[in-house]
Amino acid sequence: MAPEFRRVVIVGCGLIGGSIELALREREPSIEVVAVDRGDDVNAVAGADLVVLSAPIMEIIRILPQLAPHLSPDTLVTDTGSTKAAITDAAYAVRFIGGHPIAGAAVGGRSAARADLFAGRSWILTPVARARDEDVARLSGFVERLGARVRLLDPAEHDRVFALVSHLPQLVVSAMMSTIGSHAGEEGLELAGAGLRDSSRLASSPPEIWRDIVSSNRENVATALERVIAELRALRDDETGDTLQRTFERAVRWKRTLDDRSI
Amino acid sequence: MAPEFRRVVIVGCGLIGGSIELALREREPSIEVVAVDRGDDVNAVAGADLVVLSAPIMEIIRILPQLAPHLSPDTLVTDTGSTKAAITDAAYAVRFIGGHPIAGAAVGGRSAARADLFAGRSWILTPVARARDEDVARLSGFVERLGARVRLLDPAEHDRVFALVSHLPQLVVSAMMSTIGSHAGEEGLELAGAGLRDSSRLASSPPEIWRDIVSSNRENVATALERVIAELRALRDDETGDTLQRTFERAVRWKRTLDDRSI
Repeated sequence: MAPEFRRVVIVGCGLIGGSIELALREREPSIEVVAVDRGDDVNAVAGADLVVLSAPIMEIIRILPQLAPHLSPDTLVTDTGSTKAAITDAAYAVRFIGGHPIAGAAVGGRSAARADLFAGRSWILTPVARARDEDVARLSGFVERLGARVRLLDPAEHDRVFALVSHLPQLVVSAMMSTIGSHAGEEGLELAGAGLRDSSRLASSPPEIWRDIVSSNRENVATALERVIAELRALRDDETGDTLQRTFERAVRWKRTLDDRSI
Repeated sequence: MAPEFRRVVIVGCGLIGGSIELALREREPSIEVVAVDRGDDVNAVAGADLVVLSAPIMEIIRILPQLAPHLSPDTLVTDTGSTKAAITDAAYAVRFIGGHPIAGAAVGGRSAARADLFAGRSWILTPVARARDEDVARLSGFVERLGARVRLLDPAEHDRVFALVSHLPQLVVSAMMSTIGSHAGEEGLELAGAGLRDSSRLASSPPEIWRDIVSSNRENVATALERVIAELRALRDDETGDTLQRTFERAVRWKRTLDDRSI
């Protein structure tokens, strides 16, 4: 089957943008791929059938309103940012469907890019109500060519769910590591076992990326934080151990669901 | 060198007690080892040079006051519980030095016991001020025979540090998994990536063990929870992203210390 897009321009050459480029070159040699750095001239998108914005969220929001004059009426624009509502709002002037590949690596950047980064992973597309069926179909076809499995979600629902399953764990782990280090010190950390070490992998995440993610999803993140704070307060005030018992029972049950369901 | 103790009685045959038994049989065949279930007659400790209590914390606290009439004046008593102040308080009538091997496994119970469970691990001993130097020396020698490295710590300081490096991560991860599952549901968990999966390993921990740990270290745990709640509140109220930036920078730095220092 002929590719959905003949000329694809990728803006942003980090882990995700770089991996899309490598995957296309390896799997779809008939597609013309242009990868430009996010600082490059926006003119580079001229003639594209598909523009993929793979820059940090605030960069995507800055670039989107500048694209329209350089695109043909058929050009579809997508992105790979980790939040979707604010980006979708900034795309009012172009033919746009937001995207979020659920793929990452311990190390980011172009040098970590791999052609198989998306193989078997979910790639969420977030068309708004006015999006055309043909655009959803051709972008879905494109994503499947990269090896990923398409999931459709409303942008607002995407951001609500990811505040819980992604942004909350990151903030909780960073806050926990900060608290523990500040109060236990080096001598205390020397006594830590595997439990803390395993639980704190996300504490190495760099602030820059997460500042953008959280600031573009503030309300949902605040609600999620409020909910975990309420559970922690209940544990702090637990005189009998009954709250601990019920919290752990819920946690064990949901952890089993997570391990059964997630990929 | 001759063993410090000729006859060792282990009370409680779970992962830790069972592993001590296996390690002694493999490494120190000249030591007579008796392992009894925690429900057995307390008379089994008669004639012991060392009694090792490897039962759940509340069981240890229940057994300790019953031991004295069955012990000789030279018998030393130790334990392997995860908190130390409450247990040490319950040991007023016997010659006692608390212990806490920093070793565990994803699966507990006697069937998971291994002779090399303690090899290269820290084993904290918590003598009080009135403990005799000779007892510290002979118990340290015994622990080293099991392959572990001895660390001495005051019982109160032990409990303060472990509230931070062990009990807090467990409660935070269980509360986080409970919150996320309850509000994201099965459909939301299906979208989770590796970040949540890795961070939530401790969410599978059974409530029974942790009820004992937390209830025997309530004040320190409450203080640690209050501290992480304060950091999470600051993130919730962070309008500019500056609090996130500083929290993540502290987390990255302490995570590096943790990975460099812990074993």
